[in-house]
Amino acid sequence: MIRAGIIGVSGYTGCEILSILLGHPKCEVTWLTAKKITSPTPVSDLFGQFKGLTDLVVQNEINVDKMAQACDLVFLALPHKISMSYAGQFLKKGIKVIDLSSDYRLPDLKRFQSLTGMAHLDADNLGKAVYGLAEWNADKIAKAELIANPGCYPTSILLAILPLLADGIIDLQQPILADSKSGVSGAGRNPTQALHFSEVNESIKAYKVLEHPHAPEIVHTAQAFTQASIQLKFVPHLIPIHRGLLSTIYAFTDKKTSYDALLASYRKHYREAPFVRLCARNTWPEVRHVAHTNFCDIGFTIEDNVIVIVSAIDNLVKGAAGQAVQNMNLLYNIDQKEALVP
Amino acid sequence: MIRAGIIGVSGYTGCEILSILLGHPKCEVTWLTAKKITSPTPVSDLFGQFKGLTDLVVQNEINVDKMAQACDLVFLALPHKISMSYAGQFLKKGIKVIDLSSDYRLPDLKRFQSLTGMAHLDADNLGKAVYGLAEWNADKIAKAELIANPGCYPTSILLAILPLLADGIIDLQQPILADSKSGVSGAGRNPTQALHFSEVNESIKAYKVLEHPHAPEIVHTAQAFTQASIQLKFVPHLIPIHRGLLSTIYAFTDKKTSYDALLASYRKHYREAPFVRLCARNTWPEVRHVAHTNFCDIGFTIEDNVIVIVSAIDNLVKGAAGQAVQNMNLLYNIDQKEALVP
Amino acid sequence: MIRAGIIGVSGYTGCEILSILLGHPKCEVTWLTAKKITSPTPVSDLFGQFKGLTDLVVQNEINVDKMAQACDLVFLALPHKISMSYAGQFLKKGIKVIDLSSDYRLPDLKRFQSLTGMAHLDADNLGKAVYGLAEWNADKIAKAELIANPGCYPTSILLAILPLLADGIIDLQQPILADSKSGVSGAGRNPTQALHFSEVNESIKAYKVLEHPHAPEIVHTAQAFTQASIQLKFVPHLIPIHRGLLSTIYAFTDKKTSYDALLASYRKHYREAPFVRLCARNTWPEVRHVAHTNFCDIGFTIEDNVIVIVSAIDNLVKGAAGQAVQNMNLLYNIDQKEALVP
Amino acid sequence: MIRAGIIGVSGYTGCEILSILLGHPKCEVTWLTAKKITSPTPVSDLFGQFKGLTDLVVQNEINVDKMAQACDLVFLALPHKISMSYAGQFLKKGIKVIDLSSDYRLPDLKRFQSLTGMAHLDADNLGKAVYGLAEWNADKIAKAELIANPGCYPTSILLAILPLLADGIIDLQQPILADSKSGVSGAGRNPTQALHFSEVNESIKAYKVLEHPHAPEIVHTAQAFTQASIQLKFVPHLIPIHRGLLSTIYAFTDKKTSYDALLASYRKHYREAPFVRLCARNTWPEVRHVAHTNFCDIGFTIEDNVIVIVSAIDNLVKGAAGQAVQNMNLLYNIDQKEALVP
Repeated sequence: MIRAGIIGVSGYTGCEILSILLGHPKCEVTWLTAKKITSPTPVSDLFGQFKGLTDLVVQNEINVDKMAQACDLVFLALPHKISMSYAGQFLKKGIKVIDLSSDYRLPDLKRFQSLTGMAHLDADNLGKAVYGLAEWNADKIAKAELIANPGCYPTSILLAILPLLADGIIDLQQPILADSKSGVSGAGRNPTQALHFSEVNESIKAYKVLEHPHAPEIVHTAQAFTQASIQLKFVPHLIPIHRGLLSTIYAFTDKKTSYDALLASYRKHYREAPFVRLCARNTWPEVRHVAHTNFCDIGFTIEDNVIVIVSAIDNLVKGAAGQAVQNMNLLYNIDQKEALVP
Repeated sequence: MIRAGIIGVSGYTGCEILSILLGHPKCEVTWLTAKKITSPTPVSDLFGQFKGLTDLVVQNEINVDKMAQACDLVFLALPHKISMSYAGQFLKKGIKVIDLSSDYRLPDLKRFQSLTGMAHLDADNLGKAVYGLAEWNADKIAKAELIANPGCYPTSILLAILPLLADGIIDLQQPILADSKSGVSGAGRNPTQALHFSEVNESIKAYKVLEHPHAPEIVHTAQAFTQASIQLKFVPHLIPIHRGLLSTIYAFTDKKTSYDALLASYRKHYREAPFVRLCARNTWPEVRHVAHTNFCDIGFTIEDNVIVIVSAIDNLVKGAAGQAVQNMNLLYNIDQKEALVP
Repeated sequence: MIRAGIIGVSGYTGCEILSILLGHPKCEVTWLTAKKITSPTPVSDLFGQFKGLTDLVVQNEINVDKMAQACDLVFLALPHKISMSYAGQFLKKGIKVIDLSSDYRLPDLKRFQSLTGMAHLDADNLGKAVYGLAEWNADKIAKAELIANPGCYPTSILLAILPLLADGIIDLQQPILADSKSGVSGAGRNPTQALHFSEVNESIKAYKVLEHPHAPEIVHTAQAFTQASIQLKFVPHLIPIHRGLLSTIYAFTDKKTSYDALLASYRKHYREAPFVRLCARNTWPEVRHVAHTNFCDIGFTIEDNVIVIVSAIDNLVKGAAGQAVQNMNLLYNIDQKEALVP
Repeated sequence: MIRAGIIGVSGYTGCEILSILLGHPKCEVTWLTAKKITSPTPVSDLFGQFKGLTDLVVQNEINVDKMAQACDLVFLALPHKISMSYAGQFLKKGIKVIDLSSDYRLPDLKRFQSLTGMAHLDADNLGKAVYGLAEWNADKIAKAELIANPGCYPTSILLAILPLLADGIIDLQQPILADSKSGVSGAGRNPTQALHFSEVNESIKAYKVLEHPHAPEIVHTAQAFTQASIQLKFVPHLIPIHRGLLSTIYAFTDKKTSYDALLASYRKHYREAPFVRLCARNTWPEVRHVAHTNFCDIGFTIEDNVIVIVSAIDNLVKGAAGQAVQNMNLLYNIDQKEALVP
């Protein structure tokens, strides 16, 4: 039985990890922490949905020593720039870490500095981190000590483009244009003006156009996994749904390629991927079909030299907590579907 | 031309007043203030919808002297317990005040203290305030210096029950049960956890059950306008819509009354009320029919000794800004529909 | 292994039964039918969410003989007035039936006629049907051949009032007022003008005020389980959510009762009920806490002689498919939580 | 006073035209028709929001003779392929026609046939039709007999790209990629499975990918107004809002152009366009800022050789009814803002 701790259970991601792990037959959640509380509190008081399902109590501080005794593994569901203060402390004690922040996703100290405006606080471990995109990195994930769980936008976009990049189908002289539409939970649980119900409902907007920090994560990972040096133009949008993320991706090809060639590429790379589902020709993913699941649905077409790919995930599951559990399963040599399909 | 100022234009109510007044042929908005900004700012920078419609600049402080010169009337769209620090300053300078907070709605110092936990800061003017329920208080409104604009829940409930109370149809020995469902804008624009999109969408909840401060406002006003001493049980709910409020009200009757008697009562009292619309028998109000309008739609039925009344308003219009403009129209002897119907 | 068939899998209820049963370790779904298709079709073509989870094929006709061979039990997720043409055919072959329509809920031929305008087509079996409100009828359910699964509104209201009725706390001389708010899936999957997204979103309405056919189901069942003859005034509302149902119930008491007495009553009756959760004092159910679960959350208070009870369920789970599976579990002497809690 | 008729008032577009015209000081609505009713019906019975605002009665048949006497102008808010049976009948009687279907937007009989699978039924008038994109065709609109009101997607996309095409900024050797997100009202009011609330809410999907009939309308119009022969890849999406449409457009430039050059182009072309609003640098349109208005908000940026443009409209107003009224204003030499800004 894996003993797992979740740090930051008061956010949507931490909460979702707990939800999934409560149904995991080979993992027991032994420790929860959250910053927003002032004293230990039953998790069912923080999230009413857990009432009757668990008696777990959330601690209001991160006690590394105690957690090291109680846990084999910790999930860090902490804000960006905070995780890197904790991961090393657990690693030092031999505890495996799956970090859901962006702190360990880019193994480049200068890039980190330029993106965040601060120096990385755990440069030693940055190099050890394994990028947790299970469909493309399973071998390394299985042996990792520290897993950097991918961002939600990168998950939806990378799963859609990596096969075509790996097979040299996409023209690298041309930019890849990724137009993503995310549910509100992707922006976290902290209440802000922009996330107030009345500002989101009956609306849609683009934000951080060409400036979102997930873009370098995508570019770097594409290079790391396929040696393809892509030019990415990434435009995220906020839509009035709680959970779910749809990416519509436009890429160019310089070859006379075909729908069948694309299909063959996807099939080849995802033959053994239980969570990638390819849509039949002329059918397209819908967020409601992947909501509350760890699936990534992918539909695609080609016309002239333009490839259009649409991918859909649940940002909280495949884009965060589900993928983290999938990584845990790989790490412990368990069926990666455990707790993730009925 | 009435010269109007709006204090607190950064909230939904203040913003809605401005929207309405921009279309008012006999009123010019001359002054805007908001607390959240640090320097004077075009209102179209605060609310993108105003771009191209007005060049008005929002001031970041309330300068009573300057406003007194620029305005004949001010709308106070301030939080509860704040308005009472300003209303008197304007009144002293001969400026009319329409206050949209609850500070002047209950002319009872003790009740104010018990509801708010603080002493009223403007006891002198509390007695002067006229309750701005236009359908029931037009004569006094027309001569008022200070108008206490009704709350959204009270507007929807009072318009539904006052005719039947005035005509002695409702049994006062029994409680009136008011089950209200409000859109999120009724809770204001301040971002809080409870108003985060993800906490509201795909959900509904009751809140402040039997403890909402609008209940005493309803009880007091019913007494003031009809001499009926009612027992009210009020349960508000939050629903995932931006604007709109539906109240379902259950009252008892001790007489052998009938649908026709109810209809006669409503017709008698609202014959001249341009904003009250009675639904045909067995048809019922819907929020979408009153959204963005100053109408209150009322449907009703009776079975045995139970009367069921359903009323719908737009909480931001008839429940706040629209009613405030209606009151301004009455105050200046203008057609009360001005700027409120196309 | 229980072999189960689902008739009418193209509706929301049938689809939800399948979702739940795919995770049930002791039940195998062996047969699916739907009327809307013209030839056998993989269920994942009807509902994209099932892709990768099951290869089951939906039949486009109901072949009782074949189903009788393939199934031990059938779920009838058929429209009202249609189920009664099929239930008997399965019973005759010794197949257990859980019917999710209203056809067998009221064992009163005259009432059926007056409610539906037609004679009951299976009067013989009507008397055999066991009402499947698991918390109140477990013993009979365990031995039933035909289970009439409760309606969604009745489930939410009966679970809230039955303890207080059983303990004589509610004054039967006074009406019980039930104000319910339902998500759209409660109205079924057939596209109608009233269920068009644009007619529902940003709105709320009451409908079938005092005329909803679930009212007699509630009245009859209250009598059957507690001998209490209640007067019910039931007002359902449609709210812009997909799944979820909240009922706010107002009842009177003629005794000097207390919050603690109510609490004691609920605790006594639901001590062994794994799916009823009582809210702490002054906290209230929210639909999002029960969505996608089989829980019914209940909060309550009392003031003067008025009891206010709020209950929340997921109309598709506890109000339909989940309760049906709970009943199946009872019927086969399996832990009733099987497949219903993680 | 212009006397206007609306044919097809039971759809969202027809209903919105009526809403706008009720506030038009120089136009009187004299005739309404709808197909879905079986006898003349007050429009307030069809749409509750009109109660108290108008006593107009909807006719259940299209009587051209009577309408020709009662109207100077008719708005055809009919389905595609139906309008062309009526427009000519009105033109023959000297009645001006503004057609909101797509029947007269493409003056190419072969293209019509290939898109619709049928021959055009009014080839004679097809050549007379003037495309009603007011910002680009005002002179011709002012003299038109028959105006083909633009589609919603074309309006949002053409307003965004035409200036840059006219000024030769966009590289025509490369495709323009238009990723649009539309509210549900864009799909009409007919209830279908795909528009059922429960199928739309908490979801998003792409549809008719590269196959939407608005694409040829855009390509043709770009050519007609700017001589630019564009390659368009158009991907529409359905999002869970009632009204609103956001298009994110990716275009290439082969020149060393700059943000300032783009800005200059937009300013030059829209200096006199009261309904086009340019967003400040690094700010982006939001649907809620244009909802219920005739504005089109446009934001843009450039990086390397990629131009990103985001435009937002209310599909029912600027994308349909509002633009139709704007065209009527131009036709009758009225201020084009009449009835469209407060």
